[in-house]
Amino acid sequence: MVAHPPRRMSPQRRREHLIEATLELFATVGPEQVGVREITRAADVSRALFYRYFSGIEELRVAALSAIVRELGASIADPVGATPLDQLRSAVNAFLDVAEKHAKAYVALLRSGSVVASGDTAALVDGVREQIVRLVVERSGVPAPSPLFLMTVRGWVALAESATVSWQQDRSVPRDQLVEWLVGQLRAMLAENARHEQVPAVSF
Amino acid sequence: MVAHPPRRMSPQRRREHLIEATLELFATVGPEQVGVREITRAADVSRALFYRYFSGIEELRVAALSAIVRELGASIADPVGATPLDQLRSAVNAFLDVAEKHAKAYVALLRSGSVVASGDTAALVDGVREQIVRLVVERSGVPAPSPLFLMTVRGWVALAESATVSWQQDRSVPRDQLVEWLVGQLRAMLAENARHEQVPAVSF
Repeated sequence: MVAHPPRRMSPQRRREHLIEATLELFATVGPEQVGVREITRAADVSRALFYRYFSGIEELRVAALSAIVRELGASIADPVGATPLDQLRSAVNAFLDVAEKHAKAYVALLRSGSVVASGDTAALVDGVREQIVRLVVERSGVPAPSPLFLMTVRGWVALAESATVSWQQDRSVPRDQLVEWLVGQLRAMLAENARHEQVPAVSF
Repeated sequence: MVAHPPRRMSPQRRREHLIEATLELFATVGPEQVGVREITRAADVSRALFYRYFSGIEELRVAALSAIVRELGASIADPVGATPLDQLRSAVNAFLDVAEKHAKAYVALLRSGSVVASGDTAALVDGVREQIVRLVVERSGVPAPSPLFLMTVRGWVALAESATVSWQQDRSVPRDQLVEWLVGQLRAMLAENARHEQVPAVSF
């Protein structure tokens, strides 16, 4: 529950406040369980006020998931680190931070057929995937990535999503080990791809 | 269009016929464009007859996608080949055969947020994924797969799906090369995983 909101807020702040309350509920009870009633209760506002800001639960859902996607985009955009390998490691850490913070919403966002997934959210998710692919390609220093190279990086993003979802469920390895494993898998996949394309491997 | 169906069919055959007509439409124009009207026209039946077999387009969609999933399951279950590596190659080929035959339906089935994806179809897709994971684990000869080993195989399935969807769109490499690349990626990912777990690599 978002504690003691001030009674008077600017429209923009009120909107943000509703989105924050929604994200908190999404992360804890899961998006499937969250309706207008749960949100108005958590944000301590009336239904009438809610409907001044959103046409319904669908619109708020997309707004809340967009906020996660923006956060994810921003957090991986500027990975710190001296070498491309350090940068990759820090971007993977940033990705896991966001996935953990929004655990249940993250899983629902990715699961095909979930009540939360829609054409709008699928487009958002595809946007983040392409952003990650662009980042990896940039940092890899490959000037003109081949179709197989792009397929490798896209496949690694799919691996990272699948591994993150499994790991959030079973916590089978320490987080640091997961990060090293993900970084190692990208390097192995790029090396394997270089072998297939008969080009030198990239420098991660 | 399914040519000249006999006027009289057993109920089971009629049902199959409607599903076949649907799959043909799905593969050519894509599931999003297919409604009851398109199906009754292609199968040359009345609306009344259609509704004797299915409550609506949703139910037929799930039935049609279940048929693809069953076909996929059967085609990868018995890969031919003398060695585990040959068997893997033949299973990848069988997988691509089904993905190609049902091209547009396959993509729609996997895409989160597509009109075709639902809780029911997501469960079907998860079933196939788990079946592929079990097959790879069996063939790898690893008696007690670790969580990271399973994560590697699941991640490879995600890579295979992502690569198949990209490849169906751009046909950037010959199919044989795609098969060798997918097989090579699994071997590289398993070898990388063995390195992380400090165990011997498996025998593919």
